[in-house]
Amino acid sequence: MSFPRAAATILRVIRFEVLHQSGRARTGRLETTHGAVETPVFMPVGTKAAVKSLLPSQLEVAGVEMILSNTYHLALRPGEELVAKMGGLHRFMAWPRPILTDSGGYQVFSLARLRKVNDEGVEFQSHLDGSLVSLTPERAVEIQRRLGADVIMPLDEPAPWPCDGARVEKAMQRTHAWLTRCKRAWAGDGPQALFGIVQGGMDARLRRASAEAVCAHDLPGYAIGGLSLGEPAELLYEITDVTAALLPVNKPRYLMGVGTPADIARSVALGIDMFDCVLPTRLGRNGWAFTSEGMIKIRNAEWKEDARPVDPNCSCPCCAAFSRAYLRHCFNVDEIVGLAMLSLHNIHYYVGLMRRLRAAIREGTLEDVVRQESQRCPPLTGRREEELAPRE
Amino acid sequence: MSFPRAAATILRVIRFEVLHQSGRARTGRLETTHGAVETPVFMPVGTKAAVKSLLPSQLEVAGVEMILSNTYHLALRPGEELVAKMGGLHRFMAWPRPILTDSGGYQVFSLARLRKVNDEGVEFQSHLDGSLVSLTPERAVEIQRRLGADVIMPLDEPAPWPCDGARVEKAMQRTHAWLTRCKRAWAGDGPQALFGIVQGGMDARLRRASAEAVCAHDLPGYAIGGLSLGEPAELLYEITDVTAALLPVNKPRYLMGVGTPADIARSVALGIDMFDCVLPTRLGRNGWAFTSEGMIKIRNAEWKEDARPVDPNCSCPCCAAFSRAYLRHCFNVDEIVGLAMLSLHNIHYYVGLMRRLRAAIREGTLEDVVRQESQRCPPLTGRREEELAPRE
Repeated sequence: MSFPRAAATILRVIRFEVLHQSGRARTGRLETTHGAVETPVFMPVGTKAAVKSLLPSQLEVAGVEMILSNTYHLALRPGEELVAKMGGLHRFMAWPRPILTDSGGYQVFSLARLRKVNDEGVEFQSHLDGSLVSLTPERAVEIQRRLGADVIMPLDEPAPWPCDGARVEKAMQRTHAWLTRCKRAWAGDGPQALFGIVQGGMDARLRRASAEAVCAHDLPGYAIGGLSLGEPAELLYEITDVTAALLPVNKPRYLMGVGTPADIARSVALGIDMFDCVLPTRLGRNGWAFTSEGMIKIRNAEWKEDARPVDPNCSCPCCAAFSRAYLRHCFNVDEIVGLAMLSLHNIHYYVGLMRRLRAAIREGTLEDVVRQESQRCPPLTGRREEELAPRE
Repeated sequence: MSFPRAAATILRVIRFEVLHQSGRARTGRLETTHGAVETPVFMPVGTKAAVKSLLPSQLEVAGVEMILSNTYHLALRPGEELVAKMGGLHRFMAWPRPILTDSGGYQVFSLARLRKVNDEGVEFQSHLDGSLVSLTPERAVEIQRRLGADVIMPLDEPAPWPCDGARVEKAMQRTHAWLTRCKRAWAGDGPQALFGIVQGGMDARLRRASAEAVCAHDLPGYAIGGLSLGEPAELLYEITDVTAALLPVNKPRYLMGVGTPADIARSVALGIDMFDCVLPTRLGRNGWAFTSEGMIKIRNAEWKEDARPVDPNCSCPCCAAFSRAYLRHCFNVDEIVGLAMLSLHNIHYYVGLMRRLRAAIREGTLEDVVRQESQRCPPLTGRREEELAPRE
């Protein structure tokens, strides 16, 4: 199927430049055909071509520079062909800045009912209607080509956690084989950048083997996959530490699906440049807000008559207009404005965090931010997160 | 109970001035302590202190000048005392412009399980938790005083439709008696304006009797209640015609709960100045959009690959950013952005309609707008409305 690429006239893959270093942490600049991004960057998640309850204009005001969207969900609905016909994902969802799409691997292995997984690819039943869908490395690249994201991800097989070593190694090997095929399908001649994904579970030896195999492809960027699956925070940091140290200095490093503000701060100190996570929006929809004084649950009776904003030190549109008492009322009576405003506030918190982290790297005060964020927000990994904000 | 009135320093009731007349239609200016409003005006409905899915800032950009909120719902949750403590309804919901609150009469008689209705007042079970609540004329005024709206409404007893004549007359008499008590409780010495409500069902003779009794109070404005209850459009127009003609020329006239764009245009021609209706937001949430080419149902397969905005002649934030195909996708995958954008578009449509009506009155071309709106949108009264957009 030939799809006339709208962006075919701009044949330039992304460029990445490290600007400042402080220990292993660094600030940088990622240039794409849809604009430049300052790193470390946080990408809010727009799973189905919308960051839940928020408008692109609100994200722009918040200072969001790049978002993530989802190959698995978009391929099922509305289908990548429709998105392509509508001018690509940027125009479809009215987000003019950079987008990263993941390959669908994580969703296939976590949401769908698997029918067949072999070296060729994966066959699964859609979680929506049970229909049979197959995904191969080539097809994952083709879908993402049609969606038109600036950064695309190869099909991978993340091992669950916990998982026995043989299975982790097998999934890793398959991820490597699929990467070779993704790279061939990608060809590298368009405006999209293909990142490699390092797998290998919680095993430092496998992570080293994976980093070596993946980095041998000399790709525009590298991701660390298979983390933030419910493992303890210390294990997340340990594997991020080991793996980040193996990635080339001159390429962006993306830690997939991470995390809390504290997780992000710690990982930035380990040299990570890019993050995505559903936490700010999912927790916001469930009535949780990140604040400079720690997390608050807006439904608590404590805030019933509290005229203060969610965060007295925040100037986002939510904090500028609404009291805790009003937002609590909105959650009590199911007014959408409440969940939309907490989502927006949390996005502002995350964007502000990245700004503080970049400044701290420049000023050599990163440890202060790491300590501050660890005090503000306890680790949320694993079961705790599901309790705070069950998946819909 | 003494409540320190935040606005006690501004002791000026509303002022109303007719600016242009064309037949019975007129444009005017309504001044309140929270700013001036051009009439005819449409008030979006913020039942529970929020216009569903929309922010005050979005309403302001749309050109909304005044909104309606709901005494019954707010008295139950969060309670008028909390709203008063938070500085009144304007500050609580972050809407700095004029607000009208209704008295709760309509909701008591349509939503709650009635326990006792007599000349003293009404006792009912909350539709939320079954708890027993009583509402009297004095209490309705007191609640609204604490909420702090610019225009407040007296407790009334609207007769349902259809309804036998004796019951309609009894409800009307009680409405008159309650108005006398509301006026006494109101006292008229604060910044709030009390309107009278004319009842009398679909009986022109009763409407005349009611208008005479209500207007004898010489209040700052008058409302026509007991319409838009499912009666045919022609009956709505007939009773509006009869009743509007009986109201004083120099006071604002408010047709409660009306209606479709065509209903509003027809009623403006009969001399109505103020309107409120849930239709633009409720229909928006249910996937319907008002457009210059008629109503469209966004879920229809017809729009699947349609890259055009909802209304090619509209420049609202929804039409500026999103295609019909994208909005259809949002409704298909339950993304809130879709229903929020259709609600916002419909509010823009209604605000634009009022602007066109005011211009048409000045230019003597009102009949053109009435004809145009009747062609664009078929009558939605009665069952049809429930089919389009069931109440949640």
